[in-house]
Amino acid sequence: MSLPKKSLFELPKGIIYLDGNSLGALPKGAASRAAEVITNQWGGELIRAWNSADWMSLPQIVGDRIAKIIGADAGTVATGDTLSIKIYQALDAALKLRPNRKVILSDDGNFPSDIYMANGLIRTLGDDYELRLVAPEDVMMSITDDVAVVMLTQIDYRTGRMHDMASITKRAHDNGAIMIWDLAHSVGAVPLDLKACRAEFAVGCTYKYLNGGPGAPAFIYARPDIVDKVEPILSGWMGHKTPFTMDLNYQPAQKAERFRVGTPPIVQLSILDAALDIWDDISMPDIRAASIELSELFIKQVEAACPVLKLLSPKDADERGSHVSFAFEYAYEAIQALIDKGVIGDFRAPNIMRFGITPLYIDREDIIHAAEAMGEVINNELYNNPKYKIKARVT
Amino acid sequence: MSLPKKSLFELPKGIIYLDGNSLGALPKGAASRAAEVITNQWGGELIRAWNSADWMSLPQIVGDRIAKIIGADAGTVATGDTLSIKIYQALDAALKLRPNRKVILSDDGNFPSDIYMANGLIRTLGDDYELRLVAPEDVMMSITDDVAVVMLTQIDYRTGRMHDMASITKRAHDNGAIMIWDLAHSVGAVPLDLKACRAEFAVGCTYKYLNGGPGAPAFIYARPDIVDKVEPILSGWMGHKTPFTMDLNYQPAQKAERFRVGTPPIVQLSILDAALDIWDDISMPDIRAASIELSELFIKQVEAACPVLKLLSPKDADERGSHVSFAFEYAYEAIQALIDKGVIGDFRAPNIMRFGITPLYIDREDIIHAAEAMGEVINNELYNNPKYKIKARVT
Repeated sequence: MSLPKKSLFELPKGIIYLDGNSLGALPKGAASRAAEVITNQWGGELIRAWNSADWMSLPQIVGDRIAKIIGADAGTVATGDTLSIKIYQALDAALKLRPNRKVILSDDGNFPSDIYMANGLIRTLGDDYELRLVAPEDVMMSITDDVAVVMLTQIDYRTGRMHDMASITKRAHDNGAIMIWDLAHSVGAVPLDLKACRAEFAVGCTYKYLNGGPGAPAFIYARPDIVDKVEPILSGWMGHKTPFTMDLNYQPAQKAERFRVGTPPIVQLSILDAALDIWDDISMPDIRAASIELSELFIKQVEAACPVLKLLSPKDADERGSHVSFAFEYAYEAIQALIDKGVIGDFRAPNIMRFGITPLYIDREDIIHAAEAMGEVINNELYNNPKYKIKARVT
Repeated sequence: MSLPKKSLFELPKGIIYLDGNSLGALPKGAASRAAEVITNQWGGELIRAWNSADWMSLPQIVGDRIAKIIGADAGTVATGDTLSIKIYQALDAALKLRPNRKVILSDDGNFPSDIYMANGLIRTLGDDYELRLVAPEDVMMSITDDVAVVMLTQIDYRTGRMHDMASITKRAHDNGAIMIWDLAHSVGAVPLDLKACRAEFAVGCTYKYLNGGPGAPAFIYARPDIVDKVEPILSGWMGHKTPFTMDLNYQPAQKAERFRVGTPPIVQLSILDAALDIWDDISMPDIRAASIELSELFIKQVEAACPVLKLLSPKDADERGSHVSFAFEYAYEAIQALIDKGVIGDFRAPNIMRFGITPLYIDREDIIHAAEAMGEVINNELYNNPKYKIKARVT
């Protein structure tokens, strides 16, 4: 199946873009929305735009739109800052909900920044806290009743391997732990149902599958029945119940809004808001079906064209998110050569070629052309073009 | 004196804008820079723009430009996040540099968010930490040898009262304390000399006098000789020495760059970068001289036109930043009435009328007209227009 959305994006001619899982493509409405915000709202209304253009509500408006995409209710998602900051907030809140436990469980396939942020928090909390890292496949059995928080990224940024949110969250809860999901590579890529899953917290970024633009703000979800118990560690004035009373005593805002920190990035939030227009009339199951169809086609075509590549992603589509990765000795050079041919994928250390499948603006024809280009690069050009500095393989 | 910079801003007709200390006006280059970044870089280059448009270096480029304005060397300023986040980073770093002391000294004229963030950090660090708040005029004598960190906002967001950075920093150092300055209402408003002052940390925002736009990124300065000792609490991947090795062990980047956290907000950073073009050929002493001249004129004219207003700002220009505040029983309504007449100032609870003097785009004529409008509002319209719901004063 093909989704009738490609015309809503500004895609450069001659490019097949398989890196929307790093930075989503430019939605057509984004530039005009930014111009409106800068020229008419900021320029024309100046400070008044906080009310007249409703900048004050924008973080909440955008949060509610993201809530719909992740299967959550309005009022449960706050936007702003970066994903690293949101992980930090969620983790601190989660640990405070389990004051008698000291173990954070994560896996070594998690995105490094999540691990760094957890270690940064632990250094402040004290030596009795432990970040326990296990292999992704060992997560389930490692959720024991000494674990305070299970903190996982659902879809591995390298391989696309996907954790089962429902069963892991259930096991976390059965063992008395709090669950935090990082949805960086999930939101807009796979159907999510936070309400059914009942994880306490989820965080994500919006510049990948949601196409919010470079450095678009992040988001945090907090389950409505626990959010009122959270006293935010990053207690900035925009998370205050009434920021403009300028009270020296912090009182957290209602619901997820308490996870706001400082002045919101209005231009970037507006661009994201424009990008979310595309999602109004699309269903995540349709996106998922298209993603699987295109991913399966891509794997089949690439494996046929490039036998030397080793599929790193799960073979089973049900265990895979919306990107596909291959291991290859000359992955870095091959990605450069592909980009030179107009097929944009991504290199991830040490030897990963990664390709994002974004069915909003990628179709079957793109996939077939991309696989052909990969065959040409990997079987030939990589070794014959001195630019890539690789000697012919001795086979 | 008048600065020849007004033509570099897009100012709406019929408006006198005296709120540039809340949100600076729109520089003419900002909209086209945003369009370039969105349409050509993001749209045309997609993920490649991180290198081809040098997005990777943008936080550093902008940081170096801010460093010049605050009297600091290149490499000492990191940009991104919000001011609240930057205060949190500076405060944690400062406390770790004085592990045997537990007192943070601040004043109750500080911006509430700074106080909230300090309390949020303290809740995590433990009960033995204390945030000691004193009156602004008692700061000097309260810097004793049990104080770990002195954390102050140089210019009071309400009154414009200005702390003397040099003497307070010296007293902090004489007592073995670390000094953090919040420059929110200072940067671009008054001359700053971080190098001479030798404060360990300074933070600020860029959407006020630097005209970076709504929600523009914040900045943090760290003194070069101590920055290498800082292990950042918010240890995000963009503050890693080599973010793309995706190493699970965090190693802080060189110099101030270690205070970066997540993916930088490229669109807002680019707008800020464009806004900073205006500063290339201007001297802060010239700005200061113009600010004082305009502020003195404003006070004189307003006091003559509106005897009922009480000057809240220091009378002595040397003790005042670049905004002027008056107390008035009906401050809220008076600001509304002024805005209705095209003179934009700001209300701050409970009874403050606040006016930013931004000599880049405010001149003598604006000041004289604004004072006239204040006379009309405060002596007449406020009581005679039922919209403002104030009964005539019984005198």
